[in-house]
Amino acid sequence: MNRNLTAVSHTLASSDRAAHYGHQGAVLWLTGLSASGKSSLAMALEHALMGLGYSCYVLDGDNVRNGLNCNLGFGPEDRAENIRRVGETAALFADAGLICITAFISPYRADRGRARHACRQAFHEIYIAADLATCESRDPKGLYKKARAGELPDFTGIGAPYEPPEDPELIVDTSREPIASSLATLVDYVFRNIPLS
Amino acid sequence: MNRNLTAVSHTLASSDRAAHYGHQGAVLWLTGLSASGKSSLAMALEHALMGLGYSCYVLDGDNVRNGLNCNLGFGPEDRAENIRRVGETAALFADAGLICITAFISPYRADRGRARHACRQAFHEIYIAADLATCESRDPKGLYKKARAGELPDFTGIGAPYEPPEDPELIVDTSREPIASSLATLVDYVFRNIPLS
Repeated sequence: MNRNLTAVSHTLASSDRAAHYGHQGAVLWLTGLSASGKSSLAMALEHALMGLGYSCYVLDGDNVRNGLNCNLGFGPEDRAENIRRVGETAALFADAGLICITAFISPYRADRGRARHACRQAFHEIYIAADLATCESRDPKGLYKKARAGELPDFTGIGAPYEPPEDPELIVDTSREPIASSLATLVDYVFRNIPLS
Repeated sequence: MNRNLTAVSHTLASSDRAAHYGHQGAVLWLTGLSASGKSSLAMALEHALMGLGYSCYVLDGDNVRNGLNCNLGFGPEDRAENIRRVGETAALFADAGLICITAFISPYRADRGRARHACRQAFHEIYIAADLATCESRDPKGLYKKARAGELPDFTGIGAPYEPPEDPELIVDTSREPIASSLATLVDYVFRNIPLS
């Protein structure tokens, strides 16, 4: 019996998963200010890529903060742990063979660096580079207004810094082009860098 | 621009994902004593199901303890948090549309109950019901021997209890049948309860 147990205790090779899904696993890490368009682009990108035959999943505040990270607050340590867990979970999805799209402000280079390390060569850092004035003028949830009123003391871009990526794999600027154009840039990037077999 | 942002901010329906993968997402939660065969069966089951066309992923100590849960120890609180995070991560994989197979001792009913709650109707509790004497006689990593010698004070089955599932969706007993037979039972269960479209 022990011989049998040992005989089956191997995992699938990443090449087996790539053959199954028709592409390599990957992490598309969207970073940028609140209201830069990360979540909207992530959802639209998932939709477009699934339509092309890719297998994808979006991690964002909605599905992570209510479940896996429901025991974390918004202080500096908990925000770092939030991003650490997202990075490790994204790494699991990429290991599973999927394209995991993450949509978190993730303002600190050190936190994003840890996520890159967890995901290794699967990691693609994508800077959603809308400037602060544009994001503040959008303010769909009224968060910038609250931050300016002092109600959100550590809000990124107002009371806390955003550290732009120094060498991202891709930059899209939603303040300078329509969202459909940013989406097309993202799809093109995936199509060229994570080709379908 | 805001109108465009809103227009694309919807997620895929679970029926879209089921159509994409050819089956519903699910969590197959394997629970049982150390050396009951959970990990071996999980790996073999993933292999068999992928061969049938299912899209699967195994969460086990190897890929979770070294990454997502690397900041947890083995005290009671950390063991509970370990299982909580696994349950929430499995829920994300099921939401993505995959069949997530988990292989953790998960000895406490309360912890497994929380995982079931996180995964909702996607959750299938599968009791790998090898008795203690059988598991101890296998002891592939020498852990029972160490536990008997007092070196692992909270080892499940020796110094800490294992609470068997009260109403699991499936029971397989690897002490009473060859592993290949347990595997066939598992594949048959999945084939009947999570049918391919």
